[in-house]
Amino acid sequence: MAESVGVVKPQFHTLKEDFFFESGRVVSSITIAYETYGTLNEEKDNAILVCHALTGSAHAAGFNREDEQKPGWWDPMIGPGKAFDTDKYFVICSNFLGSCYGTTGPSSVDPQTKKRYGLKFPVVTVRDMVKLQKKLVDHLKIEKLYCVAGGSMGGMQALEWGATFPYATKSILHIAASAAITPMAIAFNAIAKVAIMKDPNWRGGDYYDDVMPIDGLAIARMAGHITYMSDESFHDKFGRRYATFEGIYDFKGLFEVENYLKYNGYKFTEYFDANTYLYVLKAMDIYDLSYGRNSLKDSLRLITPKTLFITFSSDFLFPPYQTEELVNLMKEIGHDPEWVNIESSYGHDAFLLEADTQTDIIKNFLASI
Amino acid sequence: MAESVGVVKPQFHTLKEDFFFESGRVVSSITIAYETYGTLNEEKDNAILVCHALTGSAHAAGFNREDEQKPGWWDPMIGPGKAFDTDKYFVICSNFLGSCYGTTGPSSVDPQTKKRYGLKFPVVTVRDMVKLQKKLVDHLKIEKLYCVAGGSMGGMQALEWGATFPYATKSILHIAASAAITPMAIAFNAIAKVAIMKDPNWRGGDYYDDVMPIDGLAIARMAGHITYMSDESFHDKFGRRYATFEGIYDFKGLFEVENYLKYNGYKFTEYFDANTYLYVLKAMDIYDLSYGRNSLKDSLRLITPKTLFITFSSDFLFPPYQTEELVNLMKEIGHDPEWVNIESSYGHDAFLLEADTQTDIIKNFLASI
Repeated sequence: MAESVGVVKPQFHTLKEDFFFESGRVVSSITIAYETYGTLNEEKDNAILVCHALTGSAHAAGFNREDEQKPGWWDPMIGPGKAFDTDKYFVICSNFLGSCYGTTGPSSVDPQTKKRYGLKFPVVTVRDMVKLQKKLVDHLKIEKLYCVAGGSMGGMQALEWGATFPYATKSILHIAASAAITPMAIAFNAIAKVAIMKDPNWRGGDYYDDVMPIDGLAIARMAGHITYMSDESFHDKFGRRYATFEGIYDFKGLFEVENYLKYNGYKFTEYFDANTYLYVLKAMDIYDLSYGRNSLKDSLRLITPKTLFITFSSDFLFPPYQTEELVNLMKEIGHDPEWVNIESSYGHDAFLLEADTQTDIIKNFLASI
Repeated sequence: MAESVGVVKPQFHTLKEDFFFESGRVVSSITIAYETYGTLNEEKDNAILVCHALTGSAHAAGFNREDEQKPGWWDPMIGPGKAFDTDKYFVICSNFLGSCYGTTGPSSVDPQTKKRYGLKFPVVTVRDMVKLQKKLVDHLKIEKLYCVAGGSMGGMQALEWGATFPYATKSILHIAASAAITPMAIAFNAIAKVAIMKDPNWRGGDYYDDVMPIDGLAIARMAGHITYMSDESFHDKFGRRYATFEGIYDFKGLFEVENYLKYNGYKFTEYFDANTYLYVLKAMDIYDLSYGRNSLKDSLRLITPKTLFITFSSDFLFPPYQTEELVNLMKEIGHDPEWVNIESSYGHDAFLLEADTQTDIIKNFLASI
């Protein structure tokens, strides 16, 4: 078992300047929450920016308190000797714009009105997230990152970095992601959105002085949860085992898989905000690398940093064929992307669970830059 | 374009005897709604029982009124010269037990209390459905069916016929179905169940004097809808086209796929009952051919009628590998099942949409009996 980065304190940076959203809207006093692991060298050329997924946070590795039970979300990948080796690299992870873990978003208090933004917050895009990350990197006085890496929606951010700030990073590591989600993924998110917005406690997004739309958010999470797994991982984890003592003729009896999804759906409502979930789903839905860039091929021409793509065979949320298309297009325009498709039964969750299979691939890629 | 069976009147048969459910519970005065197409010959040996899917009805072909806009659910397959050729065969389709299209179910009025059963109705199983169908076949004085056929949950009923009443049918036609649904399919149904039961208008199932839990039922249908399609059919049908005039930075803006799912979800609430949906999902979840039959292999030993299995390559609700397992097991025990896997991008819906590709396969199978 590799070492942990230990106890890490979250840090915050508040912009002095107004922040312009892709939509044209403007918000002042945006705060960005972040954590760092390892040491920035004197040349400031060993920094890796790690981007989190839909409901992730800046807490990617180690523990925020001595007695914290669970380490950060990518702990098996970030630390001494790990894929992102903190003996070599200075790893930065920030909570993305619009989230609810310290960076400004719909659940934050608007300093002007002293009330939570709610739906008054502008629609956030992946490009907005990336532009705020660049402001943090500037604040840390890092001119050029060694790598921008991420899985799932984090991978989308990494890809977008490559197109928006190609001069500001040596490489892009894009894991279990794509240049735009599939219509089927949008369909899953549609269930989530309707479930939240039809919960009577949602109250048009103005629920902060009252109870949250807990049922809607739990159902939303259940729909998401299915997309993180695979037919095979559902078989392996649950099979058709029945959970309820009363048996199959009991109207309210449950299979283990139902119990698990429900439990995790409601658990999620203890640490995530419903409006925020709508905002991050929206950002995921509307992200398209090619928007305003003429074509996907032309968008890829912008991505001059070295690139590694990793996919997982059973991932149906970000199916490997999407990456194959990107890689083929990049080759057509004379770029030299690397792509590894890892055989895994874990579905989309593999980017979190398959630390062992990813480690050497990532280490070799980072060493080659 | 083949001919229609024309205008067909629904028929009803009410049991004189009590009906014993698999759960041990007893209900009296069960009514079964059914339609027939074609003519029963004098020998009464040309009858085919067609079983409907989750939310289907007895109305499988033709029109119930001269001015009806849409024909029955399997109209392209049932009629003169069609797969189930009504010039040759007498086709029967009945609404299954627990549904809400004329056969007794949770939304029916209990003749004893004069109130709707609601959750007082016993949990219904596929075996219960099949046993009620047998009572109808007895009522029609048919000793041996020519075939029992069905797609999706209708295929499960056909398979169960083969094991429960092997002496009462010459053949079984099992389309886009399996001996038990996957844990992933149960997970989709779990979303539906939670969405309905957490809708405040559900009121513990006692909503008949008030509004229905429309939002919950619409969300439930949306989750189901995803499983009827495929990654490819979502691409083909919708792509990433945006539906809303206001554009992508509009918080409530929608992609076409979202619009479509929502529209159909709410449309569904105009013709289906929420409690009934919970009951039929439950029946789908708990069906397992092997329950109480020692093993799946032993269950298949019971199925002595001739069998044809049809699957569709992109069906992820009833993946072809499930049928492959059944077919291999049947061969191991010396049976001679036929199996055709049709290449289709339509996903599970293919059993309704792929009439052309199925027709010759089914015609040849029926001719061979």
